[in-house]
Amino acid sequence: MCAIVGVFGSTEASRVAYYSLFAMQHRGQEATGICSSDGKKLSKVKKKGLVTEVFDEEALGHLVGDMAIGHNRYSTAGSKSVIDAQPIYANYKLGEIAVAHNGNLINGENIKKMLIDEGAIFQSDMDTENIIHLIARSHKEHLKDRIIEALGVIKGAYCLVIQGRNKIFAIRDRYGVRPFALGQLEDGGYIVSSETCAFDLVGAKFIRDVRPGEMIIFDKAKEGFESIQLFEPDPRICAFEYIYFARPDSVIEGKSVYAVRQEMGRAMARENPIDADLVIPVPDSGVSAALGYAKQSGIPFEMGIVRNHYVGRTFIEPTQARRDMKVKLKLSPINSLLKGKKIVVIDDSLVRGTTAKRIIKILKDSGAKEVHMCITSPTIEHPCKYGIDTPSYKELISANKSVEEVRAYIKADSLSFLTIKSLVKSIGDERKYSLVSFDGNYFIK
Amino acid sequence: MCAIVGVFGSTEASRVAYYSLFAMQHRGQEATGICSSDGKKLSKVKKKGLVTEVFDEEALGHLVGDMAIGHNRYSTAGSKSVIDAQPIYANYKLGEIAVAHNGNLINGENIKKMLIDEGAIFQSDMDTENIIHLIARSHKEHLKDRIIEALGVIKGAYCLVIQGRNKIFAIRDRYGVRPFALGQLEDGGYIVSSETCAFDLVGAKFIRDVRPGEMIIFDKAKEGFESIQLFEPDPRICAFEYIYFARPDSVIEGKSVYAVRQEMGRAMARENPIDADLVIPVPDSGVSAALGYAKQSGIPFEMGIVRNHYVGRTFIEPTQARRDMKVKLKLSPINSLLKGKKIVVIDDSLVRGTTAKRIIKILKDSGAKEVHMCITSPTIEHPCKYGIDTPSYKELISANKSVEEVRAYIKADSLSFLTIKSLVKSIGDERKYSLVSFDGNYFIK
Amino acid sequence: MCAIVGVFGSTEASRVAYYSLFAMQHRGQEATGICSSDGKKLSKVKKKGLVTEVFDEEALGHLVGDMAIGHNRYSTAGSKSVIDAQPIYANYKLGEIAVAHNGNLINGENIKKMLIDEGAIFQSDMDTENIIHLIARSHKEHLKDRIIEALGVIKGAYCLVIQGRNKIFAIRDRYGVRPFALGQLEDGGYIVSSETCAFDLVGAKFIRDVRPGEMIIFDKAKEGFESIQLFEPDPRICAFEYIYFARPDSVIEGKSVYAVRQEMGRAMARENPIDADLVIPVPDSGVSAALGYAKQSGIPFEMGIVRNHYVGRTFIEPTQARRDMKVKLKLSPINSLLKGKKIVVIDDSLVRGTTAKRIIKILKDSGAKEVHMCITSPTIEHPCKYGIDTPSYKELISANKSVEEVRAYIKADSLSFLTIKSLVKSIGDERKYSLVSFDGNYFIK
Amino acid sequence: MCAIVGVFGSTEASRVAYYSLFAMQHRGQEATGICSSDGKKLSKVKKKGLVTEVFDEEALGHLVGDMAIGHNRYSTAGSKSVIDAQPIYANYKLGEIAVAHNGNLINGENIKKMLIDEGAIFQSDMDTENIIHLIARSHKEHLKDRIIEALGVIKGAYCLVIQGRNKIFAIRDRYGVRPFALGQLEDGGYIVSSETCAFDLVGAKFIRDVRPGEMIIFDKAKEGFESIQLFEPDPRICAFEYIYFARPDSVIEGKSVYAVRQEMGRAMARENPIDADLVIPVPDSGVSAALGYAKQSGIPFEMGIVRNHYVGRTFIEPTQARRDMKVKLKLSPINSLLKGKKIVVIDDSLVRGTTAKRIIKILKDSGAKEVHMCITSPTIEHPCKYGIDTPSYKELISANKSVEEVRAYIKADSLSFLTIKSLVKSIGDERKYSLVSFDGNYFIK
Repeated sequence: MCAIVGVFGSTEASRVAYYSLFAMQHRGQEATGICSSDGKKLSKVKKKGLVTEVFDEEALGHLVGDMAIGHNRYSTAGSKSVIDAQPIYANYKLGEIAVAHNGNLINGENIKKMLIDEGAIFQSDMDTENIIHLIARSHKEHLKDRIIEALGVIKGAYCLVIQGRNKIFAIRDRYGVRPFALGQLEDGGYIVSSETCAFDLVGAKFIRDVRPGEMIIFDKAKEGFESIQLFEPDPRICAFEYIYFARPDSVIEGKSVYAVRQEMGRAMARENPIDADLVIPVPDSGVSAALGYAKQSGIPFEMGIVRNHYVGRTFIEPTQARRDMKVKLKLSPINSLLKGKKIVVIDDSLVRGTTAKRIIKILKDSGAKEVHMCITSPTIEHPCKYGIDTPSYKELISANKSVEEVRAYIKADSLSFLTIKSLVKSIGDERKYSLVSFDGNYFIK
Repeated sequence: MCAIVGVFGSTEASRVAYYSLFAMQHRGQEATGICSSDGKKLSKVKKKGLVTEVFDEEALGHLVGDMAIGHNRYSTAGSKSVIDAQPIYANYKLGEIAVAHNGNLINGENIKKMLIDEGAIFQSDMDTENIIHLIARSHKEHLKDRIIEALGVIKGAYCLVIQGRNKIFAIRDRYGVRPFALGQLEDGGYIVSSETCAFDLVGAKFIRDVRPGEMIIFDKAKEGFESIQLFEPDPRICAFEYIYFARPDSVIEGKSVYAVRQEMGRAMARENPIDADLVIPVPDSGVSAALGYAKQSGIPFEMGIVRNHYVGRTFIEPTQARRDMKVKLKLSPINSLLKGKKIVVIDDSLVRGTTAKRIIKILKDSGAKEVHMCITSPTIEHPCKYGIDTPSYKELISANKSVEEVRAYIKADSLSFLTIKSLVKSIGDERKYSLVSFDGNYFIK
Repeated sequence: MCAIVGVFGSTEASRVAYYSLFAMQHRGQEATGICSSDGKKLSKVKKKGLVTEVFDEEALGHLVGDMAIGHNRYSTAGSKSVIDAQPIYANYKLGEIAVAHNGNLINGENIKKMLIDEGAIFQSDMDTENIIHLIARSHKEHLKDRIIEALGVIKGAYCLVIQGRNKIFAIRDRYGVRPFALGQLEDGGYIVSSETCAFDLVGAKFIRDVRPGEMIIFDKAKEGFESIQLFEPDPRICAFEYIYFARPDSVIEGKSVYAVRQEMGRAMARENPIDADLVIPVPDSGVSAALGYAKQSGIPFEMGIVRNHYVGRTFIEPTQARRDMKVKLKLSPINSLLKGKKIVVIDDSLVRGTTAKRIIKILKDSGAKEVHMCITSPTIEHPCKYGIDTPSYKELISANKSVEEVRAYIKADSLSFLTIKSLVKSIGDERKYSLVSFDGNYFIK
Repeated sequence: MCAIVGVFGSTEASRVAYYSLFAMQHRGQEATGICSSDGKKLSKVKKKGLVTEVFDEEALGHLVGDMAIGHNRYSTAGSKSVIDAQPIYANYKLGEIAVAHNGNLINGENIKKMLIDEGAIFQSDMDTENIIHLIARSHKEHLKDRIIEALGVIKGAYCLVIQGRNKIFAIRDRYGVRPFALGQLEDGGYIVSSETCAFDLVGAKFIRDVRPGEMIIFDKAKEGFESIQLFEPDPRICAFEYIYFARPDSVIEGKSVYAVRQEMGRAMARENPIDADLVIPVPDSGVSAALGYAKQSGIPFEMGIVRNHYVGRTFIEPTQARRDMKVKLKLSPINSLLKGKKIVVIDDSLVRGTTAKRIIKILKDSGAKEVHMCITSPTIEHPCKYGIDTPSYKELISANKSVEEVRAYIKADSLSFLTIKSLVKSIGDERKYSLVSFDGNYFIK
């Protein structure tokens, strides 16, 4: 996961990067960073924490220049140790460089081994460090050619922003697994970012998506931007971006995320007509799809579960005797609405099954007569290797249990998943998608 | 506003108070406090900040005993100064006492003047201090009689929890302006709290509402609880609790807040049929009513505005040039959905008009063809004096402008308010309500 | 203990109060507060923490006006609870008032009982609250007369600053137990503070000490200040101020604290000549006296123990196996200097004996051949009741053991205390002192 | 500057490293870090801040294993950016490695250029990164041989601790510019650290100094430790360690720092007999030398200036009108002692002259008749390049002004420096020292 942004030729470059990262906070909450350039030197601030925690006016004041790249990092394990925040900054033969990356390399370990065999040192566990090493070791004269050489080595899903003293490069892998959009700021500067919701906030105009296999070059010495089609495109955007990862107000490859999710709900209603009194979403993840289900089925939509927005990071954990309370701290059922009702509850995905189980328990405790769980995505049977932080096979409940077994485990009255075919149709079947978690087709070789 | 809670006879009294205050955080975010008693002495922790910030395991460990009362304080001005947090604790003739109060006294200033004339000192601006003074100055022998004497002096809206070494008193004014519910914990203890959503979280069973004019006494020396009807009830619960203040999963006087809000939306749709493509709520305040409007009118409901949950307290303010951005940091319209559409946008109230104006601007900027604003409450023409923090006449836009003038100011294509009659009918016209903000009928004399 | 300050008629009143409290931080580290007045209203900031932690530019900006009083509070038990910080602020019959107090009332509990019997409430455990109550209950017309009436009731050691809207009153008890000095600021304003070291920092000129039994009134309506001798003076300044409490650069009643401490060391050397190689102080408390001992005896003075200044509040405690390390975290002996030597170690007082015992252990571990402990004050056999936070009889080692028993307990080769007579002579035997901890003569009746 | 520590074979390795770094906090306050190993993997915690701020029980719990190395970093510029904390951790061909370094390489930039030319990337500005690169690029099979190869390339002053999975290497350059001592813990483990004061705190027994040019290897597979004399020793320990950098209770190369400083003061008194009433130190830096001066000259020693220990990092800066106050916040003269006196004031060094000027001003303001400044080190005319953070030529006042000109600038009645010869004699003229700041003899070629 993660979010990246690049801002070029704007009088408020680091400020625009800051608001863009804020708009994309949902893509990564562990750490964040911005590296700017004023054409002479790069400045950087990066740290563990939310965008609003890491940056203040003093930090933005330090990030001078009309160019900036930024990154939000998704939460992973090992937080007590040194945090691997991005952008990664380095000095190399041509001077200073900073790189931010969204995605995952499939040959990262191999490249790392090769580089280490050649005497390289790695100070983090991030693929991004591979990329900088490859650029630094290239014998090409220009940064552009070094980057192209490096891209020839790496395989996987990647959107990259690479910043030199005077240039920003925005690159997307040939499959376009992760979203990446190009826009123009009101002051004439350019912006590239993982999602279009950043554009809406900073007042940028959407130009187009960065194309799969494309490299866009912003250069202080030139007007506008240069586009190079490095690789033949074979577009397969990740279906998960539509299912739950992107913000509903983003538009990816011309499709409104909100509209796609509604359509998934509609498809679910067509495939799984249920005799029920209410359709309710798991907030906020299931809202759009639940609306679609309700419209298609004619069953009334209700916000039957209220989400508590004051849940912070320093909460006092319930004692053992009150373990059940844990999900209720975040999600409160409206008992008076649910009592005696047959309910369809919609969520966007089901990974380990533990949350679903708890939600069904609180709904039943509220007096619901029947609880039918509808997941508006297919069963997740394979770990993603292209940038989504899915757990290993062992923890993926659908990789280990049949739908009926899962239903029994979560104690739902029924459990339905979307078929892969319906998923694809909901997004638009004129194109191909990355569906590895569902079909195990690891297409990047 | 504010929230209060009292817990009696529970092995985890302060912990139950903590979770209850957490569940009622929406009623007050400025300061919070808990005072407990173990039958020998009172212990207290109170401070500026959210419930999750003020309390930690160490603090709960300090709050020993099987009795506790707590309070959340609503944000007001002057935060740099000493914070007036509750419960107020004092030593007086009978020993230690702690009091927490939700509501507002209308003769508070008069009593304060009288007490000061008699030589009393006031260390805060809180009405609650009046109440303790009155209790301390009573010549009655027992706390109960002192409280009753004090209640004979004060006028206004109040729910009170008063804690002595061995007793908790829960009192509600004869109008029952603020909600106050009574429940039983799983371990046999009792709980009183401003809203029932606290019961749901801590696993308490709702018994009944505390009655207008009732005093409930929990006494270590006695089984169960004692109820005294101090004043003849004249119930007029505050309509604002239903309109926007209470949490939707709470039930007040037997009415589900969520259901009442839907009904208000339905009433709006009946009174103001609009030719539109979509109904959207201002999240989260207008969601329930918008659902009602959509169902009644048949116009599709959409979550056309996404709320950003990462907005914190330390946000870097947009520069002057980007002032418009401010509302967008919290609320993001889904452009693709709104473009070219005629929209009904629902909110629960309109106070100053500034937020409404900004929302209409971002909707129009999103390409909406028409924006019809429907407020599912009547025009607020008078300041509340019974515990809701409404601004003065000067700032209440509806006290100074006609509906048409307000519409022009916020630049909506149309603007509708609910009639008082419809409001009352939506809640249930078998009873009376506190409607002072709408009708100016200040019924407490 | 504690420190108080009053600033009158200065363009930077709260800033001067801030620096004064900073200079007197050694008199109280638990909590601090300032209350200012601009002639119309009082503003206040007070909180748990050090002066530099509680106040920032924003806080000082809030504390407007050309008058201010302030207070540092000494650390006591129960820190998790609500902190009793001063100045105490209240509204009473004549308007707003703020009071800060250094000292201790001996009839505080009696007055409190009386006031409570009359219906007063106490929100803290501070004597200061008594004083405000008495002022508020007086029937006199003017604040001055109300204060005088209140002072007629209280007994004990007190230095007070009392601030109304337009006036500051500085009052010292007739015994002058606590120090209190009067000075003039460079901008013409006046300052009163517990110690003269505050004057040196803020650039104030020392005028004279506030006289025992004197009330000084600063009034916006009048030039200069008015002095009223309320009580016949019977001066007995607390000997502990000279022994260890005041800062060495302060001058109290015309005597340099630094010089007095040296003289105590000289007296010790005269009374207890020891055959030793080195004289070393316990830093920083014993430095001045050790210099005096060395000069008088001719034995070389050495800084044989180094104090670590990085000891903070969040230190990781040594494990049980390393308990001995605890004193070493603060005090490091210079082994090479001490090895094989006969050492006189000087400290200013001995209360429980635990620290002395640990120090002697680390000196012996360093290879010292003999360790002779010289305490430059008499044996503490009685708790102080006039404002010094001495422990109860049970914990005072000299109240329970003979000098020889204490010596055996702390494992010193010899142990000497100053006689009361020498103590008095060292300060100046032309006057009387409060010596209650030594002679048990509780002279305030 | 900076401090390093290595702990091997101790059950509490990271805890011992923590206390050692705490004892050496004076050598670096900007950032600190520890990297431990349990024989299988390395764990690390490093961050901006003091030792007591960065580490807590949770952090120590994370740092598992019986081996650990640690580092304190001296304050430098650019604090807003990413902090360059040590130890540096990396993955390289043989696995994990961590390195901490105290000193300065003189060919660091050349090596960096060479490595970068070969395709290396640098993520910090620290010499330490050079060393890891050289180790990683070596083609030797074993870490030991790789380190030796790397040491063949670097030139400069260095003490290093290098940690692999199972070994710790402690290395000191052939000149022994920085101190480095070897000790044994009570549990049988070993410790190496920059200063012996760490041993005293953790209860380690001093074995000997690490020899100039020596590599000590601690290996889990072997008993005790192995010593290899890599380079022919040419010992020239930095004189500044004795003058002001080390803690007075440390012993360096068999010389007590405290005793050496006293001797410097004695030498000053012999070379510059002054007709004065008092000798006072600038606390705490001049205390030891001032004692020596006083003893040699017979002029009484006094603590004429009191140091304030509450100065924190968040202090409110005095306004322009009160600039003079700045030095007084830290240093308070005892006016009553100084008035009318002829004073010798001792400090350990004079770099820019600004502090000396301010101190002389406050002493004169206190009424001192004459102020004679004695600096117990020679004039600093050259920047150190071997690890002491001296400013550039332009800022070194003695590189630009004669002693008389400096005296006039700081407004002293006289100003004296120690001769280089006396300095050397004070430490012990049987050996050679690094004196580059005084004589400009940059002996490392």
